[in-house]
Amino acid sequence: MGTALLTDLYELTMAQSFLEHGKTGTAVFSIFARTLPDERNFLVAGGLDMLINQLEMFRFTREDIVYLESLAIFSDDFLSYLKEYRFAGTLSAIPEGCIVFQNEPLVQIEGPLPEIQILETLALNCIHFGTLVASKAARIIAVSRGRNVVEFGFRRSHMPDAGIAAARAAYIAGFSGTSNLEAGKRFGIPVVGTMAHSYVMLFTTEEEAFRAYQSSFPDRGLYLIDTYDTLACTETIIRLAREGVPVTGIRIDSGDLADLAVKVRGRFDRAGLPHIKIFVSSNVDEYSIDRWLAGGIPIDSFGVGTHFITSSDAPYLDMVYKLVEYEGGPRFKTSPGKTTFPYRRQVVRHYKDGAMDYDEVIRMEGHEEGGLVEPYLRAGRLVKPLPAVDDIRKRCAQELMSLPERFRTLAKQEYCVRVQQ
Amino acid sequence: MGTALLTDLYELTMAQSFLEHGKTGTAVFSIFARTLPDERNFLVAGGLDMLINQLEMFRFTREDIVYLESLAIFSDDFLSYLKEYRFAGTLSAIPEGCIVFQNEPLVQIEGPLPEIQILETLALNCIHFGTLVASKAARIIAVSRGRNVVEFGFRRSHMPDAGIAAARAAYIAGFSGTSNLEAGKRFGIPVVGTMAHSYVMLFTTEEEAFRAYQSSFPDRGLYLIDTYDTLACTETIIRLAREGVPVTGIRIDSGDLADLAVKVRGRFDRAGLPHIKIFVSSNVDEYSIDRWLAGGIPIDSFGVGTHFITSSDAPYLDMVYKLVEYEGGPRFKTSPGKTTFPYRRQVVRHYKDGAMDYDEVIRMEGHEEGGLVEPYLRAGRLVKPLPAVDDIRKRCAQELMSLPERFRTLAKQEYCVRVQQ
Repeated sequence: MGTALLTDLYELTMAQSFLEHGKTGTAVFSIFARTLPDERNFLVAGGLDMLINQLEMFRFTREDIVYLESLAIFSDDFLSYLKEYRFAGTLSAIPEGCIVFQNEPLVQIEGPLPEIQILETLALNCIHFGTLVASKAARIIAVSRGRNVVEFGFRRSHMPDAGIAAARAAYIAGFSGTSNLEAGKRFGIPVVGTMAHSYVMLFTTEEEAFRAYQSSFPDRGLYLIDTYDTLACTETIIRLAREGVPVTGIRIDSGDLADLAVKVRGRFDRAGLPHIKIFVSSNVDEYSIDRWLAGGIPIDSFGVGTHFITSSDAPYLDMVYKLVEYEGGPRFKTSPGKTTFPYRRQVVRHYKDGAMDYDEVIRMEGHEEGGLVEPYLRAGRLVKPLPAVDDIRKRCAQELMSLPERFRTLAKQEYCVRVQQ
Repeated sequence: MGTALLTDLYELTMAQSFLEHGKTGTAVFSIFARTLPDERNFLVAGGLDMLINQLEMFRFTREDIVYLESLAIFSDDFLSYLKEYRFAGTLSAIPEGCIVFQNEPLVQIEGPLPEIQILETLALNCIHFGTLVASKAARIIAVSRGRNVVEFGFRRSHMPDAGIAAARAAYIAGFSGTSNLEAGKRFGIPVVGTMAHSYVMLFTTEEEAFRAYQSSFPDRGLYLIDTYDTLACTETIIRLAREGVPVTGIRIDSGDLADLAVKVRGRFDRAGLPHIKIFVSSNVDEYSIDRWLAGGIPIDSFGVGTHFITSSDAPYLDMVYKLVEYEGGPRFKTSPGKTTFPYRRQVVRHYKDGAMDYDEVIRMEGHEEGGLVEPYLRAGRLVKPLPAVDDIRKRCAQELMSLPERFRTLAKQEYCVRVQQ
């Protein structure tokens, strides 16, 4: 299967015109966020694995060519060029799991101009979404004060592929697992989940449902208690636990979650069952988590779904793929609010007392080593294996630790990024 | 390729337990929006084609089974059941392109309980996203007063599949085309696009860039004029047009779009070039379109991207997949704010002077015909061919025409939906 039609028409019209007018010199395009949303103090680099995988399949299939021919826009020479197209350029990037800010080049692609112009749409698509969800996930983790957070959003992702990529990003950022089985299979992420309301509704009583579940899965002792009346069901759970049914936790998925958590915790504690964990879900996001934990609400685990997987408070980033260099010379535009900085770039991060202090975005020449930007592809091939998901997760945890504490809150902070002119 | 792991773990744990406890009777699940976002006066049904396509491939592959076995959660009997799984149930739905409201069953799936429990995640995923973007697109069309609107969002969709589905939804709702080539190929949608800033930047002057483009594509006379200075470039365009270069339109992609449109229109008109169309893009959404057109700003075409494709003002819907019937009896839950209505349902729409007046959601029994809900699958097979995209588009246009005018504005309106108890 080819991925080369995952692009906008104008990438191809431009490429044909570049070829016809001898604009085939070496160009560099850079992907970066021009600004951060008000709702983000930092971003986490993501999407690179997806981009590299898609680039490997970036071919115009015979069907694609037939389709393009049918548009009666392109020349025969250009269609022949597309038939032979293979990405054979250079790609450098800031590794996945790194914290990044405005104007920092997440990915830089270098190659003959027409060849890399064509990649714009797909490259931006992958890096934009990967970074969007990794950043949202890290923001949630940043306020979760070590509590357990799991990813439940698959049903409301913008199509299945987004759900799979988001589950991976969540795990990288520090979520402990996902409900998403395809993501579990593909990336080796722990999978979690127990029962929905429909399960409970199928039995005459909640007790009958829980006993049935217990007989099917003796090792899985988490029960959903809000199908009818959460507090009445809490008493049922207490009775079962006292009878020796192993109960590890309960989930509350509706109502005033904080109020119910306090009441349920109180009842369990008074019943001598302090080990039963309280798990909440239903419209949970970093705003509710932060408010609840700041208020001492006794919640042990959060199931985060819709708000994470759609990045609902900031559903897109102001991220672009911009020409910065052509035949060794600078390229930039001066459109209002859309000014770009020319040349290949390196990012140097400065620390103070072990915490990130400020970043410099400098010209790459002479600074290939020692900055955040690393080489990934040369002549279209990987220069080193891509890191394993667990290694990216470790790196992300270290990055979050070295972020100054005020950035790990929901109050807006501006990190200092100095761009060398 | 199988799509059956596009699901949450708990769907499978529930299904195993249902099988073990004899809960294999006929069940009905219904997909509906519990409420509409404040930013939506109506929804447009979408996603059905995707769901039906995915259901056809809903198989647990050998690899999937190996993965599930490795989790050490499931019984051998259940894994054997999954190996043989084929969806063989009944599916009824409100056709794509229809206007729908809260509590109206977009899709109802009937079959043995474990078989249809397993479909929850994928079914919701497809219908939720399809409806989300069709609704956003129709809202944009509703305020565009017949102007031309094209879809430009592919680079910021939540992964490529969402971009393809969204381009289709946009066309159904009335957009005239998309930049997305894969969507063009797959669905026969008109594709549009000309050049980006990078193209203009590659030439010494804008004039040189435009002449080069013109020589490559003599029939495509739309030029991007904001790379450096929009008004200076307007003069260049006027000079070229007077020389006989065919200019059909210009695109402005930065700055104060309304102010520039007025100035550029004025210059073209004074230069005797009233036929040159003004096309604007960059952060365009229904709010800016409505404001500009209400203010008489002379814009002919809108390129809508990010805000459409992420449905940025309402990036998700409160949509659920709920058990409503089991073995012929009602099922409903009473969780606060999550009350559901039991039984299979039909939707009857009432009109007044040719415009939609109110809807009734009644029990299906005895009302199989004459309502919005139609049969699609029986014993897992299509009962009729799915409609062509152009037919869905026509239907959607008719639906928008019969929506009372106050719903075709951005001011919040509540449509009356009476749910029979």
